[in-house]
Amino acid sequence: MARWQPDAPGRLAAAALDLFEEHGYENTTVIEIAERAGLTKSTFFRYFPDKREVLFDKGTLTGVLVEGITSAPPAAGPLDAVADALDELGRTFFTADRREFSGRRQAVLNANSELREREALKRLDLTASMIEALGRRGVPSLTARVAAELGTLVWEIAYDRWIDTDNSEGFGPLARQALAEVRGAAGVVG
Amino acid sequence: MARWQPDAPGRLAAAALDLFEEHGYENTTVIEIAERAGLTKSTFFRYFPDKREVLFDKGTLTGVLVEGITSAPPAAGPLDAVADALDELGRTFFTADRREFSGRRQAVLNANSELREREALKRLDLTASMIEALGRRGVPSLTARVAAELGTLVWEIAYDRWIDTDNSEGFGPLARQALAEVRGAAGVVG
Repeated sequence: MARWQPDAPGRLAAAALDLFEEHGYENTTVIEIAERAGLTKSTFFRYFPDKREVLFDKGTLTGVLVEGITSAPPAAGPLDAVADALDELGRTFFTADRREFSGRRQAVLNANSELREREALKRLDLTASMIEALGRRGVPSLTARVAAELGTLVWEIAYDRWIDTDNSEGFGPLARQALAEVRGAAGVVG
Repeated sequence: MARWQPDAPGRLAAAALDLFEEHGYENTTVIEIAERAGLTKSTFFRYFPDKREVLFDKGTLTGVLVEGITSAPPAAGPLDAVADALDELGRTFFTADRREFSGRRQAVLNANSELREREALKRLDLTASMIEALGRRGVPSLTARVAAELGTLVWEIAYDRWIDTDNSEGFGPLARQALAEVRGAAGVVG
């Protein structure tokens, strides 16, 4: 299998991750990240507004998820549309060659409160995008909110399992399994 | 009805809110907040680590919620335990005399990306506290996660309605109504 060939933002993210692991997030500068990636500081700022943003994808993930929800069969229920979108995410974004990077990235995020905060906002934004995409399918507002919250939870559970090095399953199948578990749990919360 | 008599952190929050409204979050300093509250900078830092934190309660809300879940009747299902906790929150925290302050506070948060980010993290922390409290009631992990996500959504819907000035209902009844709606929606997400 060919190794993942990152473009400029991907190279910046990879360089940033290396440096954050080596010296810590606080002790790494944007200039150092750009240098390590063989790029300039102004290239960095073309892609990211600040250092805090470099490990967060600029909307590709959200784009795939929204597109997946939008293109689900018209008869699919809200959670099935989300499941289709998560499958698509596994095919195009959370691919096997990104697994190791994703696991290292998550460890860095978990260790830094500034990055955890940014991640929390991204999670809200992701849920909001799902709500909008479900709304465009004609799903009533509150149903869309519940489906998006459950969908975000499914994504989170699948993601945590996917980056676990003891696990070699693909993201798509893990998301299907997590969805079945979340559906079961939703039936017994009372 | 007696007006809410805030203690030092409450006075600091009230002063901060006034100043953020008058001059903007970015243009307000910790010293100005302390002065407006008739307190010193060192008193400010005794209660809050930084300016960003001043509009966020130091755990009282989470404490009430956790205590409410913990003291719900043993036979109560996960979502009913959360509903009891939201009732308790309406009795002790989201009381009528805090409604106007809460609405103004939310408008300031919505307008500032740094504050929105901090709020997103607080939301995750709140959900995590509910998951833990449900876990201590013996609720299985995944069921607790689903109940806490739905509970957080109920809280959010009720809160948005509660701070709406066109609405004069108490937080507790609004939470009961939102819970019924979320339950209904959870039954049709597929």
